[in-house]
Amino acid sequence: MSFCSEQLARVQPIWERMLDHRFLKETRDGTVAHETFANWMRQDYLFVEAAIPFIAALIPKAPKDHRAALGAALPTLEKELELFRERAESAGVDLRNVEPSFTNHAYVQFLLASAYARSYAEAFTVLYVAEKAYYDSWMVVKAGIDKGSIWYPFVENWTSDAFKGWVDYLEGELDRLAQDVGAAERLNMSQLFELTTKYELAFWEMAASGESWPGLPEEKA
Amino acid sequence: MSFCSEQLARVQPIWERMLDHRFLKETRDGTVAHETFANWMRQDYLFVEAAIPFIAALIPKAPKDHRAALGAALPTLEKELELFRERAESAGVDLRNVEPSFTNHAYVQFLLASAYARSYAEAFTVLYVAEKAYYDSWMVVKAGIDKGSIWYPFVENWTSDAFKGWVDYLEGELDRLAQDVGAAERLNMSQLFELTTKYELAFWEMAASGESWPGLPEEKA
Amino acid sequence: MSFCSEQLARVQPIWERMLDHRFLKETRDGTVAHETFANWMRQDYLFVEAAIPFIAALIPKAPKDHRAALGAALPTLEKELELFRERAESAGVDLRNVEPSFTNHAYVQFLLASAYARSYAEAFTVLYVAEKAYYDSWMVVKAGIDKGSIWYPFVENWTSDAFKGWVDYLEGELDRLAQDVGAAERLNMSQLFELTTKYELAFWEMAASGESWPGLPEEKA
Amino acid sequence: MSFCSEQLARVQPIWERMLDHRFLKETRDGTVAHETFANWMRQDYLFVEAAIPFIAALIPKAPKDHRAALGAALPTLEKELELFRERAESAGVDLRNVEPSFTNHAYVQFLLASAYARSYAEAFTVLYVAEKAYYDSWMVVKAGIDKGSIWYPFVENWTSDAFKGWVDYLEGELDRLAQDVGAAERLNMSQLFELTTKYELAFWEMAASGESWPGLPEEKA
Repeated sequence: MSFCSEQLARVQPIWERMLDHRFLKETRDGTVAHETFANWMRQDYLFVEAAIPFIAALIPKAPKDHRAALGAALPTLEKELELFRERAESAGVDLRNVEPSFTNHAYVQFLLASAYARSYAEAFTVLYVAEKAYYDSWMVVKAGIDKGSIWYPFVENWTSDAFKGWVDYLEGELDRLAQDVGAAERLNMSQLFELTTKYELAFWEMAASGESWPGLPEEKA
Repeated sequence: MSFCSEQLARVQPIWERMLDHRFLKETRDGTVAHETFANWMRQDYLFVEAAIPFIAALIPKAPKDHRAALGAALPTLEKELELFRERAESAGVDLRNVEPSFTNHAYVQFLLASAYARSYAEAFTVLYVAEKAYYDSWMVVKAGIDKGSIWYPFVENWTSDAFKGWVDYLEGELDRLAQDVGAAERLNMSQLFELTTKYELAFWEMAASGESWPGLPEEKA
Repeated sequence: MSFCSEQLARVQPIWERMLDHRFLKETRDGTVAHETFANWMRQDYLFVEAAIPFIAALIPKAPKDHRAALGAALPTLEKELELFRERAESAGVDLRNVEPSFTNHAYVQFLLASAYARSYAEAFTVLYVAEKAYYDSWMVVKAGIDKGSIWYPFVENWTSDAFKGWVDYLEGELDRLAQDVGAAERLNMSQLFELTTKYELAFWEMAASGESWPGLPEEKA
Repeated sequence: MSFCSEQLARVQPIWERMLDHRFLKETRDGTVAHETFANWMRQDYLFVEAAIPFIAALIPKAPKDHRAALGAALPTLEKELELFRERAESAGVDLRNVEPSFTNHAYVQFLLASAYARSYAEAFTVLYVAEKAYYDSWMVVKAGIDKGSIWYPFVENWTSDAFKGWVDYLEGELDRLAQDVGAAERLNMSQLFELTTKYELAFWEMAASGESWPGLPEEKA
């Protein structure tokens, strides 16, 4: 079995919990509170912004035949941010002066620290899981959301053929990388696979709960 | 006013909340549950372990006259871990096979990402605040804890003259670094000062609450 | 005076030596040996390839308003490599299986180490000087080279308006960064300005001399 | 055969050239010019100083059981620098205000870039080869140098049992790492083994020739 299939099977209980999250189901069913989705949008804008340094930091460690794909992802993310700003504006959501929530900040630090201190195959595992989780999560929403919903354009973005192609590319390459590494590195990759899944679940939880910083009253967060 | 004094004044509301945390007060008063303190001990062992790569990652960016002090901190931390293992054993706490909690993992990623992606003065700010918060927090506990408590040796470690000397050294150097940087970098330093304080508060909160991973049932965490 | 003007004036004796290099003059005058230029082409292909990880490594440290420009440079460099391969083929130069010369390898290590261990403004200085040196050097060649020369397309590439625009952008931004930093960092930037100029000179020297590895007979290099 | 034995056999022609270098033989025979050895001493002082950030940068990537040994190497190197200053003073050599030569600067950049952008096993290869080359080289000198030579204390330092123990430790660990990695990484390790050997040879060549910066007249170097 390929590395990705094996790992997806292994983390399935967490993965299902993620896909079954109330944030996704309420968005799909049109029952999500406007402020809840708006909060997610503000936080996710910061997250997408932070994905740029993460992917950039992977490039110096990448095999040469990965560089073009990773390099092309940077202008794509810049365009995605532009789209975000346009759509947010039309939905009346203000993306300026947003501070990252605790979970968002933590997840971004995890991405960066992985890119710098981990091996390429380990950090690439984190990238794949983050993108795959996004695709699968938004496919859940796509299955039921009204196409007239003001949130529909977001659903479209991460369920597009282009995005699916990117996730498929990452999956194929991760399977290849996993074949080449030694046993200790493969074990690390498997731990990071699970850990990234847990961060993804935490992100939906943060979006749904409007989390404040641990130990601080809500207005400080 | 020096940079550190100015910043400590600015973040005072969060700092006080940290010093006033029930975990510290209950440890001071001898009312903390054994399992609560044991949980903190297991998590903090992992945190001290992770401080080694953090400090090591600062060294290549450090001015030459900082290298000896930072380099000497690494064997000191190794000795601290040894002490941890001894004391944990005598208190009947098992430090093996512990997984980092969400907040612990997040804080460690924040340390590493700061060391790699931030300027030296910015990452040094994170180091100072983490050490200063530790010193001040354990001084709260020291003020009332029974010297016969099985947890007393931990209190002693982080309230010792040697540890105070280290914190004072960091404070003096941070003040000096802050004088030398430009306005944009000083603003970043000030944001990281607050952010590190918030992570410290979150760490006590995690210790007291026995936090599980967001969105996962307790046994998964 | 702006930082760049001040520094260019300061390193002028080395800069002039670089622009006055026999490799440039012989290429301009059409007297360069085919194998000499081919050797440069093979080495420079590797150097351009290595500029991709260098620029990528700058991105996580960059201010947000630099990210789009740096990110866009990566696909541009990929296209430049494509051009290189096409032009090399039409000139009968084989770019496969080339090993970096000593000076080339050293220069690339200097780029990477600067991106990782230096502050952003310091590493950005290295980027600017490398690009500015290229533009000025090829302008020397452009002033006299026969447009029918098989090497003309290379001259065109680095003397184009687009490339000039990039160098001008870097110059403006470096001047701005230099205004914001403290005195110690500005001194480091000034040392790196000179050092990069010296590496650029060494690169032409390597191209002209067909250098072998120090201490090794020619066929080993 | 172990990885190190296999690689040492493979690079033997370069290794022998290194051990056979006139700088080592003249130092052994007492015929080296005072200024030649003094020049080496000034450059090597800078190199040892630069080994501190290199080793520090390895620590965050190291397996946990390597951290104590690498961490202990930092204070050891600080003590070595102290020794250097004392011995230089007694030999009338001024170590202040020395600029790195081209080869020295290049080698240091190679160390740093390897620590940051390469996998741990790859960067550890560079560390081992640099230390092993030093031990073997100074053993050549030790075989014949007069114990009354003013340079003798240097010979003693790098041929001591303590230093041999360090090199043996690195060799055992590198052999272990090489068993664990995949084929692509092992190939990279083998290329870095050769490359580091070539940098070591270049260092003796620089010491013997009093090299100036390529393309610059001697007084500029």
